[in-house]
Amino acid sequence: MDIKGATLKSAILVSAVALSVAGCGSDPYPGGTGDEAAGVKIQRDAKGNPRDNGGARRLNKDQAEAIADSLQRSGAKNVILLIGDGTSDQEYTIARNYQWGAGGIIPGVDELPLTGSYTTYSLDKDTGKPNYTTDSAASGTALATGTKTANKSISVDLGGRPQRTIIEIAKANGLATGNVTTAPLQDATPAVQVSHVSNRKCEGPKKTSEKCPQDAVENGGRGSITEQLLQTRPDVTLGGGWKYFQETAAGGKYRGLTLEAQAKERGFHIVHSAAELMSVRRADQDEPLLGVFDNGTLPRLWGKEKAVQGGANEPPVKCSPNKKFTDQTPVLGDMTRKAIDLLSQPKRGFFLQVESASIDKAAHSADPCGQIGETVQLSDATTVALEYAKKHKDTLVIVTGDHAQSSQIVGTGVDTSGLTKNLMTADGVPMTVNYGTALKGEDQQHSGVQVRIAAYGPGAANVVGLTDQTDTFFLITDTLGLDRKKK
Amino acid sequence: MDIKGATLKSAILVSAVALSVAGCGSDPYPGGTGDEAAGVKIQRDAKGNPRDNGGARRLNKDQAEAIADSLQRSGAKNVILLIGDGTSDQEYTIARNYQWGAGGIIPGVDELPLTGSYTTYSLDKDTGKPNYTTDSAASGTALATGTKTANKSISVDLGGRPQRTIIEIAKANGLATGNVTTAPLQDATPAVQVSHVSNRKCEGPKKTSEKCPQDAVENGGRGSITEQLLQTRPDVTLGGGWKYFQETAAGGKYRGLTLEAQAKERGFHIVHSAAELMSVRRADQDEPLLGVFDNGTLPRLWGKEKAVQGGANEPPVKCSPNKKFTDQTPVLGDMTRKAIDLLSQPKRGFFLQVESASIDKAAHSADPCGQIGETVQLSDATTVALEYAKKHKDTLVIVTGDHAQSSQIVGTGVDTSGLTKNLMTADGVPMTVNYGTALKGEDQQHSGVQVRIAAYGPGAANVVGLTDQTDTFFLITDTLGLDRKKK
Repeated sequence: MDIKGATLKSAILVSAVALSVAGCGSDPYPGGTGDEAAGVKIQRDAKGNPRDNGGARRLNKDQAEAIADSLQRSGAKNVILLIGDGTSDQEYTIARNYQWGAGGIIPGVDELPLTGSYTTYSLDKDTGKPNYTTDSAASGTALATGTKTANKSISVDLGGRPQRTIIEIAKANGLATGNVTTAPLQDATPAVQVSHVSNRKCEGPKKTSEKCPQDAVENGGRGSITEQLLQTRPDVTLGGGWKYFQETAAGGKYRGLTLEAQAKERGFHIVHSAAELMSVRRADQDEPLLGVFDNGTLPRLWGKEKAVQGGANEPPVKCSPNKKFTDQTPVLGDMTRKAIDLLSQPKRGFFLQVESASIDKAAHSADPCGQIGETVQLSDATTVALEYAKKHKDTLVIVTGDHAQSSQIVGTGVDTSGLTKNLMTADGVPMTVNYGTALKGEDQQHSGVQVRIAAYGPGAANVVGLTDQTDTFFLITDTLGLDRKKK
Repeated sequence: MDIKGATLKSAILVSAVALSVAGCGSDPYPGGTGDEAAGVKIQRDAKGNPRDNGGARRLNKDQAEAIADSLQRSGAKNVILLIGDGTSDQEYTIARNYQWGAGGIIPGVDELPLTGSYTTYSLDKDTGKPNYTTDSAASGTALATGTKTANKSISVDLGGRPQRTIIEIAKANGLATGNVTTAPLQDATPAVQVSHVSNRKCEGPKKTSEKCPQDAVENGGRGSITEQLLQTRPDVTLGGGWKYFQETAAGGKYRGLTLEAQAKERGFHIVHSAAELMSVRRADQDEPLLGVFDNGTLPRLWGKEKAVQGGANEPPVKCSPNKKFTDQTPVLGDMTRKAIDLLSQPKRGFFLQVESASIDKAAHSADPCGQIGETVQLSDATTVALEYAKKHKDTLVIVTGDHAQSSQIVGTGVDTSGLTKNLMTADGVPMTVNYGTALKGEDQQHSGVQVRIAAYGPGAANVVGLTDQTDTFFLITDTLGLDRKKK
């Protein structure tokens, strides 16, 4: 029943094409329908010589039937929501050109049959009017709760009132739940599913006392993001941020204990390495799984190659594996497969959120190789989710970004006022990537552009066209048939 | 039977909401089915208070049925292809925020039910490998002919061989054809439908002798873009570029005549003002319509407000009407409506291409107001096309960009290394637009990102997901049931 984790990890570094075959020969999941991946098969790589008339085409027949096939209106038993932090068309095109070539596809991501865009604006804390460039806290809140809020807010509305999250609602309705990320578990995107604080920086008890005193346990609040994570208690929680578990609770039942000790008291099964993760056989409310694989953010798959002023004039480089990414670190695809494996049950459904977090982090620091490597991780995780969904047709898979980032493809070798880098792509030609949204020495900014969303499975039609990020919350909870008020 | 041109023009400047009612009370088109615009009705503006849970939602019910309704697989009688030059998600979001507010919709554009993205890469002239940032010539060629080629090439392949265009194929199959733009008719996007030259600069006989001697009439070639335009002879041709008609043919049957005189000899009905255009009652092969409304590019609807270094720190401005846009200049929506009016016939179908050209031109010069005004023109033209298609269900409407541009929304008031401008939006808050793809003093560059495509009508399902630009040529010709070899 278990999975080729070690081979998968090295496969990503060598060739992403290998991923599509790195899955499982027989259905490893209990409770599925077990039917073969019949139905819609989306193949969108160009198959001809691009010089020829029609050679660059991606479609080989009318797809109305394929689309109709994917318009299953019945509800879903399971939903897998994959989020590329800071990821939209620019980041996808850069990764596709580099790793698979301009005529290729991003496995998983480009195989989702239904596509659209959503608006991501957040709200100004004081005026309640739009803020056109959201951060991951407000955009994550919109996705997780259906409520627009101010930047920095974690699943509280403009008035500071907690908004119920998909994981909370799913749990109350009897579903299994999972939360997987390459970021610290306290980072905005995982945090919005399991906690409610006024400031995203309140990761542990210490900063919560300082920055979110009304949320602190010692003041009768719900506690830091880490403490609330333990209270919300998803069945599977995988990511980084171990350092916050070393802080000590300042009040309540677990006062004086570290959050690590608290987690143990509360019955969490804690693992710290890829090998330990792969050996886990159960995760439920009796023994929830807490996998924490780094003190902070998990290492990126690929090493840094930072864009610089005048980089468009330098020779192109290839990206390399990140030496800090050891055997101890699970790749996102393996974390996703293990989470699905543990959550998938015959008699009840699950909701799983998976985040590739460092696409955004690498873009902030103008590092195209870091960014692309983590987009490859997103592709890998999506392939895993799609494999499962094709065998379990009662599963909705959604892939989106929480907001867009700075990176742009510009003319090869053409310099800009920003930071640029030449990469040698899978096509064997240089591509120039530009980061032009920051002053010298500062972090690149998010962009406020509408963001791509794509889906497969029951309810997927609702991502087509223009929607808002908050629609996704209603899509997921409605498709799962959840009672959003149920306690 | 004719149309509220003058009122429409002023309506755009005042309020774009007025556009949706500025159409025609009764069906003005001969030959349509006359049925009411039943079927899919896409309303995607947010209707609630954005502070409330669910208040920013755009969907109010499951849309699987609506999507299924729009999956008409039968062929189309008519196709209207609308192109925003240099237009994708960034340009759309900037225009939406400014003109309609973050929770609003772009009329027409955001009402198209089926959406996807396509890749736009062109080919390197020497190696045949991908060039990740196409120009409008190569991308227009891909759209018009289904063949990838090198930048600067107008509907010839890498070997210089002419590739048949949609307008040429449609004509050979007995359809009426139209080509409408706000650019000079010799500009890349209109030119690719009616001519075949190795260099986009060969607009008239003079430059053709210099830069494309093999194409020059005096050397036995097909002639300049303008001369080929007259030879290809669409039923309706509307745009700018009158100066090239003052050049003199250097060879062939019309040697020594200006191209204006040649057009008259060939039976074209030439008009030069909005009023003259509105009074035209027929356009066909006996008397094709040639409307040329400027020596060069048509004036932009809105005046310039250029982004500058440090512009993020300046007070926000509102865009203003462009004083050079006189009563003599038709708006794109009116040109579109008149073209449809003239091409729409009971017994045969039509193909019409409509381009809003100066979205790209304004972005090149970092002018967000110019850019937004021309996106409003694209919205207006799309609304007109969609009104027609909803009454004539045998019509496929496609809206896309030929490539993406430089503009990005960044944090309000946050400066960048590029050029920035603060605009006061319809939401009553400032939005900062950044242009960061050029060195100081140079034109902003195109971006190589995949580009949004959206559609309504028979065949529209084929834009969903990831396609390539060349797929659009096959979609259009297949949906119209054209024999691509027919002479």
